[in-house]
This record gives sequence, structure tokens and C-alpha cells, in this order.
Amino acid sequence: MPEIHLLSPRGFKAAGVYAGIRSRNQPDVGLLLCDELASASAVFTTNKVFAAPIKVGREHLAGGTLRGVVVNAGNANACTGRQREKDARRMCQLAAEVTGYSPGEFLPSSTGIIGHMLPMSKLERGIVEAGHALGSSRDHALLFADAILTTDLKRKSAGVRFKIGRQVVTLAGVCKGSGMIGPRMSVDTPADLRPSVAAKRSASTGPRTGRRRPLHATMLAYLTTDASISPVLLRRLMQQATDTSFNAVTVDDHTSTNDTAVLMASGLSGAKVSVGASLKSFTQALAEVSQSLAYQIAADGEGATKVVKIEVRGCAKVEHARAIARAIANSPLVKCAMHGNDPNWGRIVSAAGLAGVPFDPERATLLLQGTPVFRSGRPVPFDAGKVSATLAAPEVLVKLDCRLGDQSTTVWTCDFSKEYVTINADYHT
Amino acid sequence: MPEIHLLSPRGFKAAGVYAGIRSRNQPDVGLLLCDELASASAVFTTNKVFAAPIKVGREHLAGGTLRGVVVNAGNANACTGRQREKDARRMCQLAAEVTGYSPGEFLPSSTGIIGHMLPMSKLERGIVEAGHALGSSRDHALLFADAILTTDLKRKSAGVRFKIGRQVVTLAGVCKGSGMIGPRMSVDTPADLRPSVAAKRSASTGPRTGRRRPLHATMLAYLTTDASISPVLLRRLMQQATDTSFNAVTVDDHTSTNDTAVLMASGLSGAKVSVGASLKSFTQALAEVSQSLAYQIAADGEGATKVVKIEVRGCAKVEHARAIARAIANSPLVKCAMHGNDPNWGRIVSAAGLAGVPFDPERATLLLQGTPVFRSGRPVPFDAGKVSATLAAPEVLVKLDCRLGDQSTTVWTCDFSKEYVTINADYHT
Repeated sequence: MPEIHLLSPRGFKAAGVYAGIRSRNQPDVGLLLCDELASASAVFTTNKVFAAPIKVGREHLAGGTLRGVVVNAGNANACTGRQREKDARRMCQLAAEVTGYSPGEFLPSSTGIIGHMLPMSKLERGIVEAGHALGSSRDHALLFADAILTTDLKRKSAGVRFKIGRQVVTLAGVCKGSGMIGPRMSVDTPADLRPSVAAKRSASTGPRTGRRRPLHATMLAYLTTDASISPVLLRRLMQQATDTSFNAVTVDDHTSTNDTAVLMASGLSGAKVSVGASLKSFTQALAEVSQSLAYQIAADGEGATKVVKIEVRGCAKVEHARAIARAIANSPLVKCAMHGNDPNWGRIVSAAGLAGVPFDPERATLLLQGTPVFRSGRPVPFDAGKVSATLAAPEVLVKLDCRLGDQSTTVWTCDFSKEYVTINADYHT
Repeated sequence: MPEIHLLSPRGFKAAGVYAGIRSRNQPDVGLLLCDELASASAVFTTNKVFAAPIKVGREHLAGGTLRGVVVNAGNANACTGRQREKDARRMCQLAAEVTGYSPGEFLPSSTGIIGHMLPMSKLERGIVEAGHALGSSRDHALLFADAILTTDLKRKSAGVRFKIGRQVVTLAGVCKGSGMIGPRMSVDTPADLRPSVAAKRSASTGPRTGRRRPLHATMLAYLTTDASISPVLLRRLMQQATDTSFNAVTVDDHTSTNDTAVLMASGLSGAKVSVGASLKSFTQALAEVSQSLAYQIAADGEGATKVVKIEVRGCAKVEHARAIARAIANSPLVKCAMHGNDPNWGRIVSAAGLAGVPFDPERATLLLQGTPVFRSGRPVPFDAGKVSATLAAPEVLVKLDCRLGDQSTTVWTCDFSKEYVTINADYHT
């Protein structure tokens, strides 16, 4: 069976071209287009410092439809004064001109360094070139996937195929993210950011590339499907899927200025998603693709040598489980211990205790790679050498049962290595 | 003028002895004693996973007085089941026996690895030995200061002398802390932790020692004064001083299970602290000593090559300023940039935006070592090479003016180096 890629769902075309925005000769401008005016929903960063494309994107998505996405890597177009909004709008304008649609039908995205003006003449040429290079082959999908990468070492892609009634539906996506990863994205504009001032998983790994200079590695995700679904329903499902995928991955807990995930539904499969089985299948497919992409971000975290999967269960509220899982996932002490295969579980239990939500060590149980190390307030004797050996794996499972309720969650992170310091201490200019 | 040390205030004795709790031959048991039943106040960790000495210490301090402190390094006595409380009480019992006072007059402290039982026979011998070695010389103060260190490379000490009326008052202190540093200490027991289930600064640097194996480097501070002050007033001043010193330092934002800072006032200077000038002088002296100690923790942070001082001003509430300063101070991206002398200010501004409190980039101004780099939502052109050169300093000042109010704060942190990873990824067993 052929790999499912971003352009496998019916009705999508894409391109990725090199416009010289960054120094490496690798695509840095991407264009994604739908033959139909797609039903669409997006989640955006809740950072109070948000880039211009976030503002323009929210605006263009207000009607729940999109024609396409125009994106650049190498420059985040954030903290660049008034010019930045003009530039984000200009990106949409150019995408509209070269494709023959309207600027308001495009979502603009940018990722890269903060505080530098977009090199508009290069970007303009790039968008026009991308418009002429559009196609729906796997290669087109890969070029688009590459055009959004920054410090990523691997291309990130996932896709599933499923049935609604007799119709085959495809849902796929690509994403990027490696550092500045601690997304907290929402479909809603937070109240204080409203204008006052302003399955079958097919994870392609792609070519291994050399590390680039430290940029600001926002999380971006673009998902496509040929299901038919209303914008209202899509909006709800998108937030739900994000909370258990992109919002559940962290590399350094630094919510970026540009985080964006968008899903466009062409409807061209003819399969309608509404209630019952269709809703269930679609929800599951969306979760699968989103989680695969989120997982790939953790696995390719800056300097990462392994994925650390934090499962927290037994909380009274899911928010409590999330706070505890995040506190563990973001503790540099825990992440360094994981890097060194050190079963130093005191760091994990104490991180749970500082999450600011109910936690009682006298009830909790902690397992490292399946080995109980702490139970009901006291240590469980274990063979440290053996457990350490089990931690030397590409994926480590940290399982904490709080025994205070029935809510649970999973958060993915990575270990903390010297390479992370090398990547991020490197002088950027 | 001779150095002011922990035992400079009248009425204090101390000792530090090696009891073999840790492998290195360096004092690991300390005893601090006051000739009088001292007026005393302490702040303790608010981590929900707190060590037994925290519980016993809160209990013994309920009356607002203390006779002394008994402390060990090398083992935190945390997450060790029911035995841990017995052991913490036993430490007080032994200190009482060897000094001839009551167990309830002692504050126990422990720092070191979590989840291991205290080696009580060694500890018992150590406390008895310390009891017989008590003295009030500078050497005694230094031995006590050394007995509380874990991964610290430097001894930490500060002291000031000032006048209240005609009387000379001395206030001094020692502390420890290098990793697992993100104190959030309070004089009050948080509601959810109550039994439901259970100025002349004289900063001595001391000898440089080799790094030890990764322990859990709690923050501990012991302060002495010969001022006369009521426990009620002391309690208020202690929280206030802590919030702008120990609670304003972070290395890795990991609030420890054992964080403790205590101040004992012998009253033997005869100078009474109540209102007016006496209160002002004492408050200032306490702030000075606490901040000097906090600063020394940041400077000796695990792997640190520099102190990063984050000044946030112009917030509507001081809590907002603290949240923003902490978000900046704890961002691994910011800390790595500081390590690499990289004026990558976008990371600082975006960290401010994710603090979860009001922040408007369109109003804010950011200065790095005095050079404006961002103002009113846009970059300020600067010579990156020159600013980078100014960042290559033992102390870096990050100054953010939010222009939303008149509240300000300062937080101290350090840079993030490969050495931090080395220290904390090292297999502990």
C-alpha cells in the first residue's frame, strides 16, 4: 500500500521552493491549496506575544473556510512592529494572485528568527514560484513538508485511511517543531488577546540533515482530509485533538509566538462526518494523525536522544493530570536523568508535587519502564542497574498513578542533552 | 574589619563534622545553637512532596522560638515512608541530649538524595560529635557552612552590621543551593498541605571543590542575629525578605522537597526591633543578607558560568512582574542564549508573553546590559557583536519595562551549560 501523505486526500495541491530566506539551500516557502473552498479550523498560540500571521490567520479563518496556506521558514515575522502585519497580508495577496483566489481565503504562517523583517522581495518571488510549481504528487507533499522545517533534523508526516459507510476517507498531515516547543494552542482567541492593543500511520522520516543555526522553532502543523465536515464541528474536534497531541508535547516548555495547527477538509470523498460512527471514525483518525505528528516532534526535539512518555493517571480532573505531567516533562532535572539513564525517581515525584494541583505522595505509585520504584509514600527496592539498562531505550515510559480520581493524560517530551545547549547557545547572528 | 560570619551575632555556637553520610570527606552534619531560647521564624517549601524535617520543623517552630538547628547533607530524608518522621525527630532528640535542651526546640534539616533511608547510626554519632565540638569562632562557622553543601562548589555566607540607636546589631547567614533550585517558600503551611493524609556584605567564597555526584540540591539557609525581635514581627519580615531573595532565585525552577530558610534572633545585642528606624534598619539588613545569599546560589548554580539578573518593572501587580521574570529566568532557550553570549532577545520577549499575566509587547522595552534591543513592539537596531561582547560578563542584566503599572521585581538565575547536563545526567547509583 502506498504511503499516505499530505496530498493523498482528494483535492489538494502543494509546492515547496527555495527562496533564499535562509542560508541553506532547502525549501523555505510552501504553498498548500485546495480545489474546493475547504471547511477549516485552526488552533493558534496563546502567547501574548504573537506573530502577525497569527492575527491575520484568525481573521481569515473567522468564516470557517480556507482555500490554502502560504508559509515561510527562516523568519517568524514576530516583534517586527507594524510592518509585520502588512507583510503577512502581502503573503496572502501574492498567494491569491498566483492561484486566482481571494487573499482572505489564505492562512499565512511564518517560522524562524524573531525580530527581523521578512525579506519581502525574496518571499514574493518564492510565493509566485510556488504557485507555478503546485502539484499533488508525493514529491510535492515532501517539498512542502521540507519548506516548513527549521532546526528539525527530520521531516514529519503522518496519514490514515478509514471508511465512513462505503466511502474511503483520507486524513493526513505534516508538521515541524524541534525547539521552542511547549504549545498551548486554542481555537478561541484568549479574551486578553482580543484587539485591545493589538488508521494507518505512515510516519515518513525523510532525509537526515545537518543542524542549522538556532532559530525559533515554533510548532506548525498542516492537516488535510477529504471528509465533508461542518466548520462548527471541525472547530470542536480540532481543539479536542490538539489538547491530547500538540498541546501534550514539550521540548523546552517555551510556547512560541507562531504556533499554529490547521485542518482543511475538502469534502471530495463525499463522506459526511456528523454524528455516530462517522464522528467516531473521524475523531479517531484525527487523534491518530495528530498524536503521530506530536510524537515525531518529541522524538526530533533539539538534542533529543529519546522520547519520554509521561502517563499520569488517577487524578480528580484531567487538568490536574496535565499539570503534573507537564511539571515532570519540563523538569530539567528529570530530563537530564533520562538522558543519563538514571532511575533517580525522587526528581519525578518531587516534580509532581510542585505542579500546583492536588497530589499526595502517600497515595501515588511510580513506574519506570514498568518497574515500580515508589509506592504509597515510600521507595520500592529495585535493581538500579537493571532499571537503568531499561532506560537506555528510544522510548521511556514514566507512569504515575496518583490514586485521587479517574482522570488521566499522556505528555511526550525528550531528554535533555549537551547537544540542546550546543544548538541553543550558538550565537545567532 | 574582620569578616562577619554566622557566629558573629552574639550568643551563637556551631559545629560541622564528618559523619560519613556522603562519600567525600567533608562535613556532613551541622549543629547550630543559641545561648538563649531565640525568637525564630522559618519559611518552608510549598512542594506537596515535602520531607519529614519540614513537617517536624513547622511543628517545633509553632511557638515562634528555637534553641538550635540540626542538619545533615547527603540524604534528604524525603519519600522514605513513615520511618522518615521518626528519623527527623530522632535528630532533634540527639541534638537535645548532647546540648541539654529539649527536642522540641530544634529545627531538623536534611538535604541530599531523595528516597533513601537516613543512615541513622552514622548520623547519631555525628550529632553527638558535633555537640561536643560546638564553638563560636569563624572556623566553627565555616565548618557549619560546609556541612550543608551538596553539589555546591562554593561556601555561601553573608553578614551585615548596623546600629539601632547606640547598639551595634549583627545579622549574618549561610546557605546552600546549586541545583533543584526554584524555591517557593512560605511561613504558612499551604491549606492543602495541612495534615489531611498525613549592611556590610561579607560574602566569603571558600575553597573551590570538585563537583560531586548529582544529589538533590535543596535550598537551605540559616540566619542569625543578636537583635531582639518578637516572633510575630519576625514572621512577617521573614516572608517579605524571602519573597525578594530566596524565592527570587532559580536555577532549574524545581522547587525542592526540603527548601528551608530560618532566622534566629538571640536578642543579646540589647537592641530592640519594633517600629520606625529600628524596623527599617533591620528590614534592610535582612534584605541585604538574604539577597546576597540568594545571589550566591545563582552564581554557584550547577554548571553556571554567569549570573543573569532579570529586572522586570512597570507591571500592574508585583505578582505579574514575578511571573514574567520567572518565565524569562526559567526558559532554557534564554539560559542557553545567555551561555552563548547571544543577544537573541526574541526568546526573552516571547518568554514574557507566555507567563500567563498581562503583557503587551507593543508597550514593552527590553535592554540587554543597558543596550535597548526592543521597544514598543519592534526591534531596535543594535550592534550584535558589541552587545554579545557585553554579555560575556560574570553578571548579565536583562531589563524589561512592561509599561503597564508601577510594580517591579528582580529575579536571579544563571546560564545553562553543558556542565549542567553532565552534573545531572550522571548516573546516581
